[in-house]
Amino acid sequence: MWLTKTFSIKGSVFQGVWKRSLLCGLFGLLVSFLYSNQWPVSEPILGGIIPSIVLGLLLVFRTNTAYERFWEGRKLWGSTVNTIRNLAWQLSVSLKEVEPGDRDRKIQALHLLSAFAIAKKRHLRYEAPNEELKPWVSPSQYQVLQNTDNMPLKITHWLGDYLQQEYNRGLLTVNQLASIHSLMTRLMDNVGGCERILKTPIPPAYVIHLNQLILLYCLLLPFQVVQELGFSTGIFVAIISFALFGIEEIGVEIENPFGYDPNDLPLDKICDTIIQNIEEFTHSNSEEVPKPVD
Amino acid sequence: MWLTKTFSIKGSVFQGVWKRSLLCGLFGLLVSFLYSNQWPVSEPILGGIIPSIVLGLLLVFRTNTAYERFWEGRKLWGSTVNTIRNLAWQLSVSLKEVEPGDRDRKIQALHLLSAFAIAKKRHLRYEAPNEELKPWVSPSQYQVLQNTDNMPLKITHWLGDYLQQEYNRGLLTVNQLASIHSLMTRLMDNVGGCERILKTPIPPAYVIHLNQLILLYCLLLPFQVVQELGFSTGIFVAIISFALFGIEEIGVEIENPFGYDPNDLPLDKICDTIIQNIEEFTHSNSEEVPKPVD
Amino acid sequence: MWLTKTFSIKGSVFQGVWKRSLLCGLFGLLVSFLYSNQWPVSEPILGGIIPSIVLGLLLVFRTNTAYERFWEGRKLWGSTVNTIRNLAWQLSVSLKEVEPGDRDRKIQALHLLSAFAIAKKRHLRYEAPNEELKPWVSPSQYQVLQNTDNMPLKITHWLGDYLQQEYNRGLLTVNQLASIHSLMTRLMDNVGGCERILKTPIPPAYVIHLNQLILLYCLLLPFQVVQELGFSTGIFVAIISFALFGIEEIGVEIENPFGYDPNDLPLDKICDTIIQNIEEFTHSNSEEVPKPVD
Amino acid sequence: MWLTKTFSIKGSVFQGVWKRSLLCGLFGLLVSFLYSNQWPVSEPILGGIIPSIVLGLLLVFRTNTAYERFWEGRKLWGSTVNTIRNLAWQLSVSLKEVEPGDRDRKIQALHLLSAFAIAKKRHLRYEAPNEELKPWVSPSQYQVLQNTDNMPLKITHWLGDYLQQEYNRGLLTVNQLASIHSLMTRLMDNVGGCERILKTPIPPAYVIHLNQLILLYCLLLPFQVVQELGFSTGIFVAIISFALFGIEEIGVEIENPFGYDPNDLPLDKICDTIIQNIEEFTHSNSEEVPKPVD
Amino acid sequence: MWLTKTFSIKGSVFQGVWKRSLLCGLFGLLVSFLYSNQWPVSEPILGGIIPSIVLGLLLVFRTNTAYERFWEGRKLWGSTVNTIRNLAWQLSVSLKEVEPGDRDRKIQALHLLSAFAIAKKRHLRYEAPNEELKPWVSPSQYQVLQNTDNMPLKITHWLGDYLQQEYNRGLLTVNQLASIHSLMTRLMDNVGGCERILKTPIPPAYVIHLNQLILLYCLLLPFQVVQELGFSTGIFVAIISFALFGIEEIGVEIENPFGYDPNDLPLDKICDTIIQNIEEFTHSNSEEVPKPVD
Repeated sequence: MWLTKTFSIKGSVFQGVWKRSLLCGLFGLLVSFLYSNQWPVSEPILGGIIPSIVLGLLLVFRTNTAYERFWEGRKLWGSTVNTIRNLAWQLSVSLKEVEPGDRDRKIQALHLLSAFAIAKKRHLRYEAPNEELKPWVSPSQYQVLQNTDNMPLKITHWLGDYLQQEYNRGLLTVNQLASIHSLMTRLMDNVGGCERILKTPIPPAYVIHLNQLILLYCLLLPFQVVQELGFSTGIFVAIISFALFGIEEIGVEIENPFGYDPNDLPLDKICDTIIQNIEEFTHSNSEEVPKPVD
Repeated sequence: MWLTKTFSIKGSVFQGVWKRSLLCGLFGLLVSFLYSNQWPVSEPILGGIIPSIVLGLLLVFRTNTAYERFWEGRKLWGSTVNTIRNLAWQLSVSLKEVEPGDRDRKIQALHLLSAFAIAKKRHLRYEAPNEELKPWVSPSQYQVLQNTDNMPLKITHWLGDYLQQEYNRGLLTVNQLASIHSLMTRLMDNVGGCERILKTPIPPAYVIHLNQLILLYCLLLPFQVVQELGFSTGIFVAIISFALFGIEEIGVEIENPFGYDPNDLPLDKICDTIIQNIEEFTHSNSEEVPKPVD
Repeated sequence: MWLTKTFSIKGSVFQGVWKRSLLCGLFGLLVSFLYSNQWPVSEPILGGIIPSIVLGLLLVFRTNTAYERFWEGRKLWGSTVNTIRNLAWQLSVSLKEVEPGDRDRKIQALHLLSAFAIAKKRHLRYEAPNEELKPWVSPSQYQVLQNTDNMPLKITHWLGDYLQQEYNRGLLTVNQLASIHSLMTRLMDNVGGCERILKTPIPPAYVIHLNQLILLYCLLLPFQVVQELGFSTGIFVAIISFALFGIEEIGVEIENPFGYDPNDLPLDKICDTIIQNIEEFTHSNSEEVPKPVD
Repeated sequence: MWLTKTFSIKGSVFQGVWKRSLLCGLFGLLVSFLYSNQWPVSEPILGGIIPSIVLGLLLVFRTNTAYERFWEGRKLWGSTVNTIRNLAWQLSVSLKEVEPGDRDRKIQALHLLSAFAIAKKRHLRYEAPNEELKPWVSPSQYQVLQNTDNMPLKITHWLGDYLQQEYNRGLLTVNQLASIHSLMTRLMDNVGGCERILKTPIPPAYVIHLNQLILLYCLLLPFQVVQELGFSTGIFVAIISFALFGIEEIGVEIENPFGYDPNDLPLDKICDTIIQNIEEFTHSNSEEVPKPVD
Repeated sequence: MWLTKTFSIKGSVFQGVWKRSLLCGLFGLLVSFLYSNQWPVSEPILGGIIPSIVLGLLLVFRTNTAYERFWEGRKLWGSTVNTIRNLAWQLSVSLKEVEPGDRDRKIQALHLLSAFAIAKKRHLRYEAPNEELKPWVSPSQYQVLQNTDNMPLKITHWLGDYLQQEYNRGLLTVNQLASIHSLMTRLMDNVGGCERILKTPIPPAYVIHLNQLILLYCLLLPFQVVQELGFSTGIFVAIISFALFGIEEIGVEIENPFGYDPNDLPLDKICDTIIQNIEEFTHSNSEEVPKPVD
C-alpha cells in the first residue's frame, strides 16, 4: 500500500513538472558533452551560489502558505456545510405551517439552500448556472441567475425575502428570525472568504523571485558535478530539478483549492452531502419521527 | 523512567516502519557485496542529490501539519465536553418540572447527550450503533439510528424536538431556549469540524512527492557510503531509513486522530467523562445539594 | 507560461534591488583586480563568519512576518466587503418606506456605504478626498470630509445618525437597529485594524540587524571565492547579493499592502466590487425581483 | 545581569539532564580509552547517520509545540482572571439588595469566585481541597467538595443555583442573568481547556522517536571525534549531549504548565490577584466610592 | 535611504550588546597571542560542538516568540482604540439629555475614556498617576487613583456606575446598556491581556539554555579559527558574537513592548489618537454636524 501510494501518478505533480525537469536534464547532458570535449565547464565552487538552506526555506514557506490557503478554503466550506445543516433544521422546526401551501413554500426554501451550495461551487469555478442547479430553483429564478454576477448572494437574498414574508405573516418570532439571519450572515461571509482566497494570489514578487532562484540553481548544477559524474550528469540534474520544481508545483496546485484537480477540495462530494442532508428534512413526514420520550 | 519511555514499543512507530527499513538495509547489504566484488558502485557525490535540508524541512512540515490536525481534533472534542456540560447544567437548572412525568422526560433528554457523545465517536470511526449506545436511547430511537447516515445529527434533532415541545408547554422561556439552541449549534459545528478533519487528508501531491524523495534518498545512500563502511553499510542504511520513515509515519498516525491507535485521541475515556458528568445531574436529588448560603 | 512568469519584470523585486546588487558586484570585481595584482585578499575561512543558516532563517522570518501582515490586511478588506454587502442587504430589507422621500433617503444611506469604502482606501493611502468620492456624498458632507482626520469614521457616524433618526420615526425595530449597529462596529474595527498594520512597522532593531548581516555577508563573499573564481567573482557576488537583497525586498514591499505596487492589495478593484454590489440594491425595483415561490 | 541570568541554576534544565549527560560523557571516555588501546573505534563517517538538520528541526518543533501549550494555558488563566473580574463587577452592580441578608448572600457569592480560582488551581494539580479553600466556602460546601470529582464545576453550579434564586426573587433582570450566564460559560470553558492541555500529551510516537534519535546521535558521537580529540572526547560528548537533552527537557518542563516548577505558570500569584480583585468589591462601602461626576 | 536605515544606531541593538561582543573579541585576541606563542590552542574540530543549525533554530524561535508577544500587545492596544471609539460614539448617540447638567455629565463620562487610555499606559509601565491624567478626572477621583492597584479597572467601574445611574433615570434603554457593557467588557479584557504579556516572560529554562549555548559557541570559536586567521581572530570573533547576541537581544527588547524603547509600541502616540478621537465628540455642537441627507 505504501508503495502504491508512493508511485501513483494521479494526484502527483509529475504531469506539471516533467517537461521542465527533462529540459534541465538535457542541459546537463549538453554540459557533460562539452566537458568530454575538454571545454572548461567544471566549476565546483558554484555550489554555494544559492545556499541550499535559503532555497529550502523559501520552498517550504511557499508550500506552507499554499497549504494554509487550502485549509482555510476547506474550513470555509466546512462552515458552509454546518451552517446549511443548522439553517435547514431551524427552518423545519421554527416555521409554523398554517395554510395548505405553507409546506410547499417551506420545501422550496429548503431547496434554495441546495441551490446555494451548488451556486457557490460554480461561482468559485467561474461557471454559469447549468442543469445541476435547475431542480432547486424555479424557472424564473433560473433565468435571473443566468444574468447575475454573484449567484450565491442572489440566492441568499431570495431566502431573506421569503423569511421576511413569513415573518410578516406571523409564522416566525422575532428571535427566530434574528437567529436565522445570523446564520445567513455566516453563509455570506463564507462566500466572501472563498472569493478572497480565489482572487488574492500569493504576491507575485515572491513567486517570481523563487522561480528565478530555482531555475538558476538547476542550471548551475551541471557545472558543479560534471567533473565527478561525467555522462550521468543529465540524470542527476533531471532528478534534482524534479525534486525542487515538484515542491514549487505542489504550492501552485493547492493555493487555489476550488478547481477540478485531484489535489483540490472535493467540492462535488461536499455539495452532494449538503443536498442529502437537506433531503432528510424535505422528505420526512412527522409520523416517522420517533418521539424523544416514549 | 526516561529510558523506559525511550524504548517502549507500544505507541512507537516501530510497527509501522520496520519492514521498509529492513528492505532498505538489505539493499545496502547487497550494494556492499557488489562493492566487495569490485563492482563500480561507490559514488560519494550522490550525497547531494537530495539536499538533506530540503528533505528535513519537508518532513517537519509534514509532522507539523499532522499535529495541527490532531490538536484541532482534540480542541473540537474538548469543546464537545464543555458544551455538553453546559447543556446538561442548563437543562437541569432551566427546565421547570410541573407534571409527574417531567422529571423522567428531562432525564431522557440528558441521556440523549450521553448518546450524542457515543454516537459522535462511532460516527467518526465509521461504526454502526451497538450495545454501548443502547442504554441512552429508547428502543425505537435505536432502530432509527441503525438506518441513519449521521447519528449525532439525528440525536441533536431529537433533542431539539423535545425542547420545542417543552417550550410550547411553557416550561422554558424564549431566552433560555435561545441560549440552549446556541449550545446545540456548537455541538453540530463540532461534528462538522471533526468530519472535515476525517475526510480531508493532506493533499496527495504532497504525500506522494515526499515519499518519493525519502525513498530516493534511502536508496542512494549505500552508493555514497559503501567505500567507507564496507559491510556495515546495511546497518547504517537501515538505521537512517528508520529515522526518516519514522518521522513520516508519525505524520500518518496522527493526521486522523479518531481511531484506536495509542497515538490517537482517547475518545473512549473522553466519552466516559462526559457520561459521568451527566450522571451527576440525573442522579442528584435536590435534597443533597448544599445551598450556596447557609 | 511558467517562463513568462519567471522572467516578468513587473511585480518583481528587480526595480528595488538592482543598484545594491550592482554595487556589490563592482566591489567583487575590485577584489578580483587586487587579487590578480597579488594583494593578499583571499580568505576562504571567512565563509563561516555569518552562518548561512542563521541568515537564511532570519530572511525567512522576515518574509513570513511581512506576508502575515499582507494577509491580515487582505482579511480585513475581505471583512469590509462582506460587512458592507450585509449592511446594504439589511438596510434594503429592514427599513420601511412610509413617506415619499424615504426611498431617496435610503439610497443616500446606501451611497454612504460606497463612500465608506473609497474613504477607507484613501485614508490608508494618506490621500485627501477627491472626485472619486463626490458622487456618493452630498456637497456639504464633502466639505466636512476635506477637514476631517478620519474620513471613514466620519461617514460611519453619519450613517449612525441617519439610522437613529429612522429608528426614532419607527421605521426600524430595536432588534434591527442592534443588528445593524453590530455590523457597523465591525466596519469601524476593520478601519482600526488596517491602521494598526499601516502604523506599526516591524521593529526597527530587527530590520537594522538583518540589513547589517546581509551587507556584511555580501561584502565578505569576494574574499572567500576570489581564489577559485578569479575575474568571475564580480558576477558571482552580484547574483548572490541579488538573491539575498531580493528576499529582504519582498518583505519590504508586502509589509504595507495598501499602496499602489503590483504586490499590494488590489484596493481599487475591491472598491469597485463593493460599489457594484450596492448598485444592485439602489437600482432594483421591487417588480423585477422574482418571488422565491411561484 | 546578563551573566547572572545565564548561569542561574534555578529554573534551568540542569537538574533534569545532568545525569544523562554525565553518562554520555563517561561513554565517550570509555571510547577514548579503547582508542588509545588501539581498538578500531574511529568511524568519522558516522557523523552523517542522523543529519543534524533533521535532529535540529525535530527539537525545535518539540519546543515550539510545548511552548504553544504553555502559552495557551496562560491565555486560559488570563481569561479566567478577566472573567472573574467581570463577574464580580456585574454581581456587585446588578444584584439589587432589598432584604437585610442580601448583602451577606452577595458577599458569599463573591467568595465563591475566589473559591473557584483556588479550586481550579488545585484541580489541575490533582490536589484535594485544603485550608486554602476553607475561608471562601461554607463548611457544608467544603465537605461536598472533598468528595467531588470536579471541584471548579461544582462551585460554578452553586453560583448558578444562587443566581437562579435571586432571579426568581426578582433581584436580577432576565438580561442581566443572561449576561452573567455567558460569563459563567466562559469560566467552565476555561476549566475544560486547561483539562485538555493537562490530559492530552504530545503524541507518544513523537516523543519516543525523538528520544531515540537524540540518544543514537550522542552515542555515535565519540566514534566520530575520538581520532581528533583523544582523551577530551568525554567532555566534548558530555557538553553536546547536555545541549541536546537540554532542549528536549525544556519541552518536557513547559508542556504541562500547571505544576510547581519555576518554569510553570505562577498559579499561586494569579490566584492571589483574583482574590485581591474580589476583596475590593466585598470590602467597599458605597460611601467611599467617589461619584464619577461631582 | 537603505544605507541610512542599515547604519542607524537609534533603535538598533548596538547599545545592548557591544560590551559582550567586545569581551568575546578580546578573548579571541588573547587566544591568538597564546597561539603565536606556540600554545596548543588550535582545535578546528570544536566547530561542531554546537551545530550551527541548532543554535540558528533556537535563535529564530526566540525572535519569533518575542515578536508574537509584541504583535499581540499591538493588537490589544488596537482593540482598545477601536473599542473606545465605539464607546464614545455610542455614548454620544444613545444617551438622552433631558436636564441641564446632563451634557456636562456626558462629557465627563467621555473624559473618563481618555483617562482610561492614559491609566492603562501608566499601569503597564508601573507608573503612578501624574499630571497627564489630571485633566480627565475629578480631583477626588485623582486621589482615589493614587491609592489604587489597578487604575484602568477602577475607571471602568466608575463609568459603569455612571451608566447604571443614567439607566435608572431612564436615559438609556436596556439594549443600549447591554451593548455598552459588552464594549466595556472588551476594554477590561484588553487590560487583562496586556497584563498577561507583561507578567509572563518566556520560560526561564529556555532563556538560560539559549544564553549558555551562545556563550559556549562564541568562546569556542577562537580555538577553531586561530590557525587560519592568526591575529585577525579577535575581530572575527567580535563580529560573529555581535551577530548572535544581537538576535537574542532583539528578542529581549520586543518581548515586553510597553516600555520607552524605540522598539516598543508608540503608546504615547496611541493615547494621543484616542484623546483626539474623543475630543471630536466633546467639542462638537449639533449645529455643525451636516445631516446625512440634505
